[in-house]
Amino acid sequence: MASSTDPKSDQEYGKGAPPPPQPRPDAPAVVNYFAVDVALRVLLFAAAVTGVVVIVTSDQTKWVPSINGGINGFGYRKAKFNHSPAFIYYVVAMSIAGLYALITILASISVLFKPSFQTKLLLHLAFLDVLILGIVASATGSAGGVAYVGLKGNKHVGWIKVCSTYDKFCQHLAGSLAVSLFACVLLVFLTWLSIFSLHARIHKY
Amino acid sequence: MASSTDPKSDQEYGKGAPPPPQPRPDAPAVVNYFAVDVALRVLLFAAAVTGVVVIVTSDQTKWVPSINGGINGFGYRKAKFNHSPAFIYYVVAMSIAGLYALITILASISVLFKPSFQTKLLLHLAFLDVLILGIVASATGSAGGVAYVGLKGNKHVGWIKVCSTYDKFCQHLAGSLAVSLFACVLLVFLTWLSIFSLHARIHKY
Repeated sequence: MASSTDPKSDQEYGKGAPPPPQPRPDAPAVVNYFAVDVALRVLLFAAAVTGVVVIVTSDQTKWVPSINGGINGFGYRKAKFNHSPAFIYYVVAMSIAGLYALITILASISVLFKPSFQTKLLLHLAFLDVLILGIVASATGSAGGVAYVGLKGNKHVGWIKVCSTYDKFCQHLAGSLAVSLFACVLLVFLTWLSIFSLHARIHKY
Repeated sequence: MASSTDPKSDQEYGKGAPPPPQPRPDAPAVVNYFAVDVALRVLLFAAAVTGVVVIVTSDQTKWVPSINGGINGFGYRKAKFNHSPAFIYYVVAMSIAGLYALITILASISVLFKPSFQTKLLLHLAFLDVLILGIVASATGSAGGVAYVGLKGNKHVGWIKVCSTYDKFCQHLAGSLAVSLFACVLLVFLTWLSIFSLHARIHKY
């Protein structure tokens, strides 16, 4: 991992602006967590892409009783993620998370060997990670809430179970939701890592 | 607002442990945001309590067609938040957020005039705020997803609208969800504030 003790890099910082304070000689060494950060973001990207692909490929067509007549009162009926606004929101949120992961992987890699920009990037990453966590967590909750109604139904208001008919559709949903829960955990860890790294720099400079 | 430039307080830090580094003479002054932090947490507490009270008092009983017979095929039927697991999760999450807000208000007030503990508290608050944000955002999403099905129904799977019958119940739901969305925004701001305060201390010590 790159260390942030290179004095030359500190001198490169902000041409024209006053030079930042040099590290204190009595300060403890700062461990650089950007390699861990990049690894977590790669996992986040993989989780987001998996989550989107699994839910988008969940289409299932079944031969079920049809309200529109059909043959002997039966007809083909399709279950698709875009039949519910909650799942559309979920796909949009996971796509945003995937795109965000990709951009921040590049940003994190680009400062791996430029210690002078690391503190500023940590601040911005922590800010944005929190926002993306809010979006992904709410999307996971929203899709999970609707999927649970599909799984168990709700006898109080007469909403029927869907998963007993559309088994493949619901398996895809469950898989995608598990992955997005993992993405939420990753985002919490990423934010914690940025905050911890910022905290570790307090007694360094 | 209390300032963290009091050298006596720094010397009180950690009896037995090595004394922390003194502020650099060339460092810019650090603004102390703990008063803002306390104000935001009071708002969060108010939002959480309001959200819980509004959804818990949403019971509504209506004279509707009954599947169990009743008088002329009609009967009284109650809508209550605990008929849906999503709303139960929502109430639990908002209660946790309220309790958390209460505890952290006391913690923030207690360090207002003890600058030596502020950095450590900021770190812990930022860590916990992120967790609570994840919980509240997912609960808001989950309750919102189910409430939306109640409002619009879903013709693809034959889930009927509920809000056309239970108007008061749905108004309470909508009010509570608006408040919890506000709580999510507050939690994002609180995390940002803690992160920003930590960052501001980097060139101070």
